[in-house]
Amino acid sequence: MSRPDPRNVKRIACIGAGTIGGGMVAQFLASGYDVIAQDPGKDAHDSLERLLDQAWPILERIGLQPGASRDRLRFTKDIEEAVADAEFVQESVPENLELKVGIYEKLDHLVPASIVIGSSTSGFPMTEIQKRCRYPERTVVAHPVNPPYLIPLIEIVGGEKTDPAVLDWATDFFDAVGKRVLRMENEIYGFLINRLQIALFREALQMVAAGKASVAQIDDCLTHGLGLRWACMGPFATFHLGSGDRGLGDFMDSFGRGAEWRAPYVTETPLPEWTSELREKIVRQAEEVINGRTIPQMIEERNETIIGLLKLREASRINASKNVA
Amino acid sequence: MSRPDPRNVKRIACIGAGTIGGGMVAQFLASGYDVIAQDPGKDAHDSLERLLDQAWPILERIGLQPGASRDRLRFTKDIEEAVADAEFVQESVPENLELKVGIYEKLDHLVPASIVIGSSTSGFPMTEIQKRCRYPERTVVAHPVNPPYLIPLIEIVGGEKTDPAVLDWATDFFDAVGKRVLRMENEIYGFLINRLQIALFREALQMVAAGKASVAQIDDCLTHGLGLRWACMGPFATFHLGSGDRGLGDFMDSFGRGAEWRAPYVTETPLPEWTSELREKIVRQAEEVINGRTIPQMIEERNETIIGLLKLREASRINASKNVA
Repeated sequence: MSRPDPRNVKRIACIGAGTIGGGMVAQFLASGYDVIAQDPGKDAHDSLERLLDQAWPILERIGLQPGASRDRLRFTKDIEEAVADAEFVQESVPENLELKVGIYEKLDHLVPASIVIGSSTSGFPMTEIQKRCRYPERTVVAHPVNPPYLIPLIEIVGGEKTDPAVLDWATDFFDAVGKRVLRMENEIYGFLINRLQIALFREALQMVAAGKASVAQIDDCLTHGLGLRWACMGPFATFHLGSGDRGLGDFMDSFGRGAEWRAPYVTETPLPEWTSELREKIVRQAEEVINGRTIPQMIEERNETIIGLLKLREASRINASKNVA
Repeated sequence: MSRPDPRNVKRIACIGAGTIGGGMVAQFLASGYDVIAQDPGKDAHDSLERLLDQAWPILERIGLQPGASRDRLRFTKDIEEAVADAEFVQESVPENLELKVGIYEKLDHLVPASIVIGSSTSGFPMTEIQKRCRYPERTVVAHPVNPPYLIPLIEIVGGEKTDPAVLDWATDFFDAVGKRVLRMENEIYGFLINRLQIALFREALQMVAAGKASVAQIDDCLTHGLGLRWACMGPFATFHLGSGDRGLGDFMDSFGRGAEWRAPYVTETPLPEWTSELREKIVRQAEEVINGRTIPQMIEERNETIIGLLKLREASRINASKNVA
């Protein structure tokens, strides 16, 4: 079976055009594709246009790809019309498993088997979504982060019946779109983004429920604290810089040493069993993040970004919320 | 007992001058205080000077307070000399409870009872740290986020024996320093920053341990995804913008509705019991974060900040890590 060249796709169908689907429409248009958006909702077309009114000036400032134009968007309520000539289909219908299974069954009949279908699902495994397809091998999760036209990351992960060559195809395609592809080899509920996001959110809910902290206090912790760091580096790189010049191995040793360090951080999330193998695995894998940079180099990069970010937020009204004493 | 005016403090003693203590020294110097730093470590003075060599040019760019100068720093190995004339004492010795209890017992004798002592502890409750003090009422947790001279947030929380007036004093003092004060009324292990940070980190460790994701994949999720949003807004504000124009109440309804939405996000962290009271509490408390802004206004502010942030990172070498496919 001959698929389109993933780096030379011209026409994309977007099934579902709400917050996420519409955001993907904006991303694809800005990247220079012809897009046909489909959504059966009564106000769907109007709300898509409003989303584009908001997104487009931003995308122009970031820089459109050659030929990119809002004129290259068509809208229809008809799913068959939408996918007729598509070389890639992005599905973003509401997050309801039965609904998605039904849509995939329909797309399975309407879309040639050579065409890859990606799902914006934020948590359902493709194994469950693809279960009624005759051609499940071309279906893949392609989960963006809201707003999809601004946040670079997209998670690519297949189901049990997804052809590994389709994961390669989707990786190349989204790389050409300009996204930062996070390709997962393991299919887990929530993938990675929502596993991490929801772990933090559930801890937050526990504290709000118990009256230990308020919604505003929690949001402040991110906006004026943790989020500033995580905009520059992830948790492992953060802790790599947390022990002076001794690095992540030293940090993990103190983390794993036992009750004294760990007891103060009794969150609701359990720790995995602590072994020297796990310690070594973490330190070894972290080399990919550190990528040869020294700790002072990493600190300098982090600091430069945080300074700029603080200045940016001062200029915008991001501090308008009155949520800190 | 007459404490110094919290908005007119001149001389600060910093006990412990490692990564965090040294960062607090940098913050206090940049805010225009006289600082005496104490650390018994063999290389402590040199490493503090190196930290300041790195931090000072940054602090100059952010803007020093009138009169701020590195010349206003003195260093000593002697704790008694350090606290002799201090109008505030910030303790940042290593994160070891017995060590801290011992230091507080010593400070209790050396520092007049009118002087407030703050601890940089990242998780131990002040109730445990202050237990051998004769004057525990003037001790308070003042937990910064690394790097303390760049990240605005500082957590202020007392122990059982802390005088509430001392919480007021510390809040006013750190406000004058230029920090963004997060005052907690409840004393919990890890306070808020580390409860949230470690909840996410433990989930990450679970996935690395199980081979479900790599360190680099997890760090990418933050750096190129979640962190970009959390630099602009916290989790509740994020979800407020996640349901089109329907807002947080709608989001929480779908979150609480049951298995369909929640099941895909089975993290290791349990959910609190879901009640309509909890839903209402969240929506009501979130008003403080939303602060009268419409969803389109909030989206615009978020987008402006993310655009600027992406440009910033392009200019710096933050993308130097090769950690995404």
